[in-house]
Amino acid sequence: MKKRGETAISPTREEDYPEWYQQVIKASDLAERSAVRGCMVIRPWGYALWENIMGALDAMFKATGVQNAYFPLFIPLSFLEKEAEHVEGFAKECAVVTHHRLEKGPDGGLVPAGLLQEPLVVRPTSETIIGDSFSRWISSYRDLPILINQWANVVRWELRTRIFLRTSEFLWQEGHTAHASAEEAIERTLLMLDIYARLAEEYLAMPVIKGRKSASERFPGAVDTFSIESMMQDRKALQAGTSHFLGQNFARASGITFQNAEEKEEYAWTTSWGSSTRMIGGLIMTHGDDNGIILPPRVASAHAVLLPIYRSDKEKAEVMTYAGNLARELQDVRYHDAPLRIQIDARDTGGARNWDWIKKGIPLRVEIGPRDITQNAVYLGRRDKGNTDKVSLKREAFIGEVPRILDEIQKNLYERALAYRKAYTITLDDRDGFYAFFTSKNADPPEIHGGFAFSHWCGSQDCEAKIKDDLGVTIRCIPLDAGPENGSCICCGNASTERVVFAKAY
Amino acid sequence: MKKRGETAISPTREEDYPEWYQQVIKASDLAERSAVRGCMVIRPWGYALWENIMGALDAMFKATGVQNAYFPLFIPLSFLEKEAEHVEGFAKECAVVTHHRLEKGPDGGLVPAGLLQEPLVVRPTSETIIGDSFSRWISSYRDLPILINQWANVVRWELRTRIFLRTSEFLWQEGHTAHASAEEAIERTLLMLDIYARLAEEYLAMPVIKGRKSASERFPGAVDTFSIESMMQDRKALQAGTSHFLGQNFARASGITFQNAEEKEEYAWTTSWGSSTRMIGGLIMTHGDDNGIILPPRVASAHAVLLPIYRSDKEKAEVMTYAGNLARELQDVRYHDAPLRIQIDARDTGGARNWDWIKKGIPLRVEIGPRDITQNAVYLGRRDKGNTDKVSLKREAFIGEVPRILDEIQKNLYERALAYRKAYTITLDDRDGFYAFFTSKNADPPEIHGGFAFSHWCGSQDCEAKIKDDLGVTIRCIPLDAGPENGSCICCGNASTERVVFAKAY
Repeated sequence: MKKRGETAISPTREEDYPEWYQQVIKASDLAERSAVRGCMVIRPWGYALWENIMGALDAMFKATGVQNAYFPLFIPLSFLEKEAEHVEGFAKECAVVTHHRLEKGPDGGLVPAGLLQEPLVVRPTSETIIGDSFSRWISSYRDLPILINQWANVVRWELRTRIFLRTSEFLWQEGHTAHASAEEAIERTLLMLDIYARLAEEYLAMPVIKGRKSASERFPGAVDTFSIESMMQDRKALQAGTSHFLGQNFARASGITFQNAEEKEEYAWTTSWGSSTRMIGGLIMTHGDDNGIILPPRVASAHAVLLPIYRSDKEKAEVMTYAGNLARELQDVRYHDAPLRIQIDARDTGGARNWDWIKKGIPLRVEIGPRDITQNAVYLGRRDKGNTDKVSLKREAFIGEVPRILDEIQKNLYERALAYRKAYTITLDDRDGFYAFFTSKNADPPEIHGGFAFSHWCGSQDCEAKIKDDLGVTIRCIPLDAGPENGSCICCGNASTERVVFAKAY
Repeated sequence: MKKRGETAISPTREEDYPEWYQQVIKASDLAERSAVRGCMVIRPWGYALWENIMGALDAMFKATGVQNAYFPLFIPLSFLEKEAEHVEGFAKECAVVTHHRLEKGPDGGLVPAGLLQEPLVVRPTSETIIGDSFSRWISSYRDLPILINQWANVVRWELRTRIFLRTSEFLWQEGHTAHASAEEAIERTLLMLDIYARLAEEYLAMPVIKGRKSASERFPGAVDTFSIESMMQDRKALQAGTSHFLGQNFARASGITFQNAEEKEEYAWTTSWGSSTRMIGGLIMTHGDDNGIILPPRVASAHAVLLPIYRSDKEKAEVMTYAGNLARELQDVRYHDAPLRIQIDARDTGGARNWDWIKKGIPLRVEIGPRDITQNAVYLGRRDKGNTDKVSLKREAFIGEVPRILDEIQKNLYERALAYRKAYTITLDDRDGFYAFFTSKNADPPEIHGGFAFSHWCGSQDCEAKIKDDLGVTIRCIPLDAGPENGSCICCGNASTERVVFAKAY
């Protein structure tokens, strides 16, 4: 449909997907690399998106009784060491604070001084430090459940980083709960997974598969890890939220005990669950096209930009007045219980201005020129349609219609993404077909192939490792909604009782 | 008025103010010390308060065009060194990251490994790292002004810490703006000071004095620092928000230049302004009494708690239904454009339950017993009145009256605090009187004396230092609303043109 040179982003997704990803972020002003290795700067257009995501999640958390709190950034090394698998999982990527001041060094420059007795790790996650508080807050079954969430920054030192997807510092929420029984903790684990799925599907317009992780992909120290998995436009999977049933492992490590109704001392059952700015990377790769990102209306940094068009100061004064009044009226319209978010861009940069907003992915572009004023109309472009596919609408009709149009865009984005996932999801039962699916050069274009394969797996870590070694393909999850089914492992041919989702992944 | 033993908090404010502060926080469940030296845990009751403060500030910022963004936690040492006064101001209290992983040490335990080429400082404030972004974002006068705010954690390593008032890690917002002229930057500096004053007075019910800092109390690297100063109940001053005009100092350090309308290259004029969880300490010390904290309704973690009273399971079922229905109706009432925040506490712990909520400072306690149901009434206690000073109100009247009652409490708290400040504010023109005011043992009780002294100061740093050495008293600010006035310096007797506020301070 599009010829080369007609797109705003170069390269296109087909030409070079990873580079398209970098360019589309740059063109949108969402975020940028910083001078600090592996750390990003989230620019206002990206942070507004994050604020809307936080708002949606926070309200869903609170509706289930979760309360926010805040725990220290630093974790004493000895705390991290309390859970053996846990520390092993994070030791290779920890930023370590060793000194607490700077002083003049021998060559005149400043050097670290004031060596700490015990090094402090910048939190990669907070199970151990929050567990320490829980051990003090909980003494009786009457104190349970405790349902806590924290909005925070965390650091996992990464050698190869990519904005939003993998950065040394990222923003996230981490929930931590403690319960009197395993059943209740598992129920909470799955409830929070449901909330992540709702966030993805209803707000980010990203269809997801909910499932259980295989043992090798579990959170370090967890008994069970659940995730939501979404397909990007290069057919790779992105894990967009995880929820962990921690059993009594962390309760034992942190001494979280309670007296049960029979006055016996027991370890509590805990959970943790997190989602991060990584979801923004998923949103970009799910909806973006060769003209830039596309923001789903429910979380869009702004819903509409008003673009006054004028050729003289007199015309400018007229259209600016019209635009200002229109903006105020639109801001009184409520969309899903909040005011519409409206911007006016009065720059006189012509077509470049229009393209800026296409690249930024705003759902609605509303052009207002002298002729529109005469006709009491607006000229509307939608980001889910072609760039020149615009319509003239009467002003009053437009104001009334905005929520419906936004919901229609939201629905279109979701359905497009779902259709894409369906097109590249396959049920495979023969090993050759499986290998061909993930390696075929007959795909068009050749670098885009594969997708999600629903295949049988016997449960052996050897089979899982072999497929990962051979193809770079991992078990994304064991879907929750799939019933038991007898079959043969796609790798070894041994008996299997369930299908799992295989895919390449971020 | 009160006899010993009748208060919920021991010691009382009069007996030991610093210890009262620690105990009142403990009794309220606002926050606690953590296992990490100098870092606090903000518990749900305290974090909800912080969320309301953030919400109020954030809305005021955005109404003036400020946008939120997020910048890296880590600052390369070389960045901090770019501004000489700045680095000197923070070098003694920097947490320094020197390693990026952990590995097994000789004795089997983990030790820091992976030495960084350049140490990273955990941000004590972000002028230099944000300046780096500004230097890339700004090229023309058309890009200005840039108005950015960040909600973040910062670290300033403190040897002596006190929850909320002085902790090694704290939560804050830091605003950073860049402008094309000094005038516009100064205007922004003062506008943000006004917003801090509005937050303090309208939301926290804390009367403040807005003023300019003396040179010795300026932010390291600033041309001018402004603050709001509030009086605590031990008559010491608390600085609750600062706004800095940075001139071109940081623009020069970070290379923030722009082409002006005449196509000449110029350094931008920048500002920064911050307020933090320290305000919660101020709120506690302004309003708290010997029974606990008192939360101003505009920011209270919750507005009302419903306390069902019952003596049998049958009664419990009845009062719980009545309370549940009442809670739902109250949640539909709007108070300053947001729903009322209502809790139900169904524990059967009798009087202890009532005292818990008094100590937590909730504005309204609503008792509901079988007799109240019969009379279609509630039994209301207010935190700004005596603990036994309760009234019976008809249910419907109560629901309709809640916003008015909350506003009345808000006003009472503000007026009490203002009356307190006025009672301990004095205009002093003689040196002996000044020294007596800050040292008198004739005060009743002797350990509480002094307050705010409005006195003349010649502007000499020697006089400022002498008063600090002699009395531990500093110049809190040079009030903005005081006109010029001729007089003699309270210290040296030389000519002075203005009065300043002297006080002991946190």
